[in-house]
Amino acid sequence: MLFKVEMDVNVPLDYDPQRFEELKAVEKAYSQDLQNKGVWRHIWRVAGLYSNVSIFDVESNEKLHEILMGLPLYPFMDVRVTALCRHPSSVREDDS
Amino acid sequence: MLFKVEMDVNVPLDYDPQRFEELKAVEKAYSQDLQNKGVWRHIWRVAGLYSNVSIFDVESNEKLHEILMGLPLYPFMDVRVTALCRHPSSVREDDS
Amino acid sequence: MLFKVEMDVNVPLDYDPQRFEELKAVEKAYSQDLQNKGVWRHIWRVAGLYSNVSIFDVESNEKLHEILMGLPLYPFMDVRVTALCRHPSSVREDDS
Amino acid sequence: MLFKVEMDVNVPLDYDPQRFEELKAVEKAYSQDLQNKGVWRHIWRVAGLYSNVSIFDVESNEKLHEILMGLPLYPFMDVRVTALCRHPSSVREDDS
Amino acid sequence: MLFKVEMDVNVPLDYDPQRFEELKAVEKAYSQDLQNKGVWRHIWRVAGLYSNVSIFDVESNEKLHEILMGLPLYPFMDVRVTALCRHPSSVREDDS
Amino acid sequence: MLFKVEMDVNVPLDYDPQRFEELKAVEKAYSQDLQNKGVWRHIWRVAGLYSNVSIFDVESNEKLHEILMGLPLYPFMDVRVTALCRHPSSVREDDS
Amino acid sequence: MLFKVEMDVNVPLDYDPQRFEELKAVEKAYSQDLQNKGVWRHIWRVAGLYSNVSIFDVESNEKLHEILMGLPLYPFMDVRVTALCRHPSSVREDDS
Amino acid sequence: MLFKVEMDVNVPLDYDPQRFEELKAVEKAYSQDLQNKGVWRHIWRVAGLYSNVSIFDVESNEKLHEILMGLPLYPFMDVRVTALCRHPSSVREDDS
Amino acid sequence: MLFKVEMDVNVPLDYDPQRFEELKAVEKAYSQDLQNKGVWRHIWRVAGLYSNVSIFDVESNEKLHEILMGLPLYPFMDVRVTALCRHPSSVREDDS
Amino acid sequence: MLFKVEMDVNVPLDYDPQRFEELKAVEKAYSQDLQNKGVWRHIWRVAGLYSNVSIFDVESNEKLHEILMGLPLYPFMDVRVTALCRHPSSVREDDS
Repeated sequence: MLFKVEMDVNVPLDYDPQRFEELKAVEKAYSQDLQNKGVWRHIWRVAGLYSNVSIFDVESNEKLHEILMGLPLYPFMDVRVTALCRHPSSVREDDS
Repeated sequence: MLFKVEMDVNVPLDYDPQRFEELKAVEKAYSQDLQNKGVWRHIWRVAGLYSNVSIFDVESNEKLHEILMGLPLYPFMDVRVTALCRHPSSVREDDS
Repeated sequence: MLFKVEMDVNVPLDYDPQRFEELKAVEKAYSQDLQNKGVWRHIWRVAGLYSNVSIFDVESNEKLHEILMGLPLYPFMDVRVTALCRHPSSVREDDS
Repeated sequence: MLFKVEMDVNVPLDYDPQRFEELKAVEKAYSQDLQNKGVWRHIWRVAGLYSNVSIFDVESNEKLHEILMGLPLYPFMDVRVTALCRHPSSVREDDS
Repeated sequence: MLFKVEMDVNVPLDYDPQRFEELKAVEKAYSQDLQNKGVWRHIWRVAGLYSNVSIFDVESNEKLHEILMGLPLYPFMDVRVTALCRHPSSVREDDS
Repeated sequence: MLFKVEMDVNVPLDYDPQRFEELKAVEKAYSQDLQNKGVWRHIWRVAGLYSNVSIFDVESNEKLHEILMGLPLYPFMDVRVTALCRHPSSVREDDS
Repeated sequence: MLFKVEMDVNVPLDYDPQRFEELKAVEKAYSQDLQNKGVWRHIWRVAGLYSNVSIFDVESNEKLHEILMGLPLYPFMDVRVTALCRHPSSVREDDS
Repeated sequence: MLFKVEMDVNVPLDYDPQRFEELKAVEKAYSQDLQNKGVWRHIWRVAGLYSNVSIFDVESNEKLHEILMGLPLYPFMDVRVTALCRHPSSVREDDS
Repeated sequence: MLFKVEMDVNVPLDYDPQRFEELKAVEKAYSQDLQNKGVWRHIWRVAGLYSNVSIFDVESNEKLHEILMGLPLYPFMDVRVTALCRHPSSVREDDS
Repeated sequence: MLFKVEMDVNVPLDYDPQRFEELKAVEKAYSQDLQNKGVWRHIWRVAGLYSNVSIFDVESNEKLHEILMGLPLYPFMDVRVTALCRHPSSVREDDS
């Protein structure tokens, strides 16, 4: 089941840069693990912003919630969730 | 070069249903042709809405504009365009 | 899997009242059938508005989309969909 | 008398995590006591957000106000209140 | 139980003026009957707008809904409802 | 001359609670003095929020400004002012 | 007593141009009469828009309402009203 | 050339009051000097808010920018600029 | 003196296409004449939308207003005007 | 390929002014280097605001992202990106 998740990251001006880099490294590993499992299907950077557009493929709303709450950078994020489904015009059976 | 395009379709209550079905059929063919060419990379339906979330892969802003203006249902649509780029955490080289 | 769906109904001033009453009767039957099946879990009227707040329990985003698109009054509606899940403080196992 | 209450919880990045966990425990007990009394009829988590959608059944606006002001996490919350009533299409007499 | 209700009236440019005057007369009688019964406690005009700010005193959300749906001008209105209660600083016992 | 004034009170999480209680006591006395003089005609609490809806009866915009600027809690408030006048359907001569 | 009034004029594409010109002529006379009386203190055009920014000097909210409702183009307008008062830094006694 | 400038002043709760009073005194002198020169044509207080509505008469956009950037309270302000011009219905030649 | 003007064009679904093409041809000639005179400095299409971003170089707000009001497609447009000036970091003397 | 980028700069009241001046100097050099290379085609100041409107000419969304992320003042900015293309009415071949 697919969801579009849009995440904006807001870092306070006075946040310790080294600590933030560490969190980013953990975030990257967390994200790549889920990408390799096929759960985090896509992640794109929004040009010019510290934001991403992601597509998740999960078995339930609960699973999506659990994944997002586990994001190391979640406390810095504004998150918007949109439930998606297969489009009748799509040529790809496996993209829904 | 990737763009997220979100399209909301608004059909007036008194629009001729047969004519609209004809336009939808042309729109579907137009979309599937571009999907088969790899230009319209993804199209998902937003659950519960007459809206889609699409990803286009085009060589330029001009090409994107030309494609969207050619949509048979364009006069019925609200459209939002967002420029995307490869995310540094993405595990897929070909997803940017 | 639960979703909150909020629906606002907008009837044009010059819409044929008898035809609208007929549509409302079909809508009511459609809704009550889904309520009896446990799919449309709750429906409340927003005080003072021609709007409702509903909770759906469906197996997938696709199923939710199919149900909402089948609403006889859908062409008159603005719809907002929010994915829900069980709250960790809930005392009801069957409310998630 | 039913009300939909939507609560978003915002925790400052530098808030003492232990103190917040303590407040959450008190909040949970407060909520479950009201759920067991039938006053806090439903509570759902919004998928991906630190937000809930709740349904309260109270005898008056005053009672609702008193309950919400008593929430241990109230100082961290944005709250939206919507008065509900029985929907004419509802099949449940006790859901209004 | 008190509610603030704000109503904006929108009349289409080509609506039959005589018919609208008739509806306004029925609306006025409907409102004054409820004012005399103490249900529609206050009604003020917003300066410069075809809008009012009203205070209703009703026994339940259902009663409020029934009254507002019965407004002869309801199909022309945008309506916003806010639940009120007695303010702890109020000097008037009967104003809550 | 009547004005609707809506006030939202925002208290920083780390504001000294005792100092705030002192300010609230001064605010209450300030408000009740104006209520007894007939200037602050009504004050209602918005259910579930730290907000009020008030009606002021003043001789001029200047007088209203002076009163609001004198509110002990003004630095914590978001304020919205709306000029009102007698409604042609009102049954109360003294409510305009 | 001063008020800022901002008016946006919206003319439907298919409105009879001659009839609109006639209404504009009546509007102009109505406005100039009030300007000559010192009631409509200022009127400026917003550059590039069919909108104006006006300052009215009236004895009461009621008077302002009566004047605005009498505008021949009122049915075409969106109107925003803001109560003003003398600014403590103003060098002009007669500008408040 | 005329511009409407609207300024909202936001003072942090913990800002040193004496220092702010000093800035206000400098701001007042700055404003009155420009008023006396005919550049800052009007300044009105918005009733109930720490905001003003001002009209500037400057030779160019650059001049307006320079003046606003020089405001001693500028770092505390939200500013909105609107270009104005003479209204065809205005009776005052010198008000454009 | 520079202004950014953003124009969105909205064509009703049932507008006569031939008549609209004629208006577009007149609009193009009108625009190109002003571009050749150096008044309409830049015009860009927003990718995917029937909107443009334009830069005008005019001697006054009045001149800008006159030009925009003269646009053959003005009745179909939403227009936003922003006054610009030379940026202190600009390397181009003639771009302000 | 052209993009409109709008940047608003927000400086906290208590930020060290000298440090900010240093950042501004680096920002200016960074911007002017890109202007001299023809990448940052235009930069204009919004009159009265600490904001700019810029036009970038880049080979890809990725390049735009890299440039904006490199802005020394980026952590202080709100940024909005809009993809542009040549307008069919433009008289300038090199302005697209």
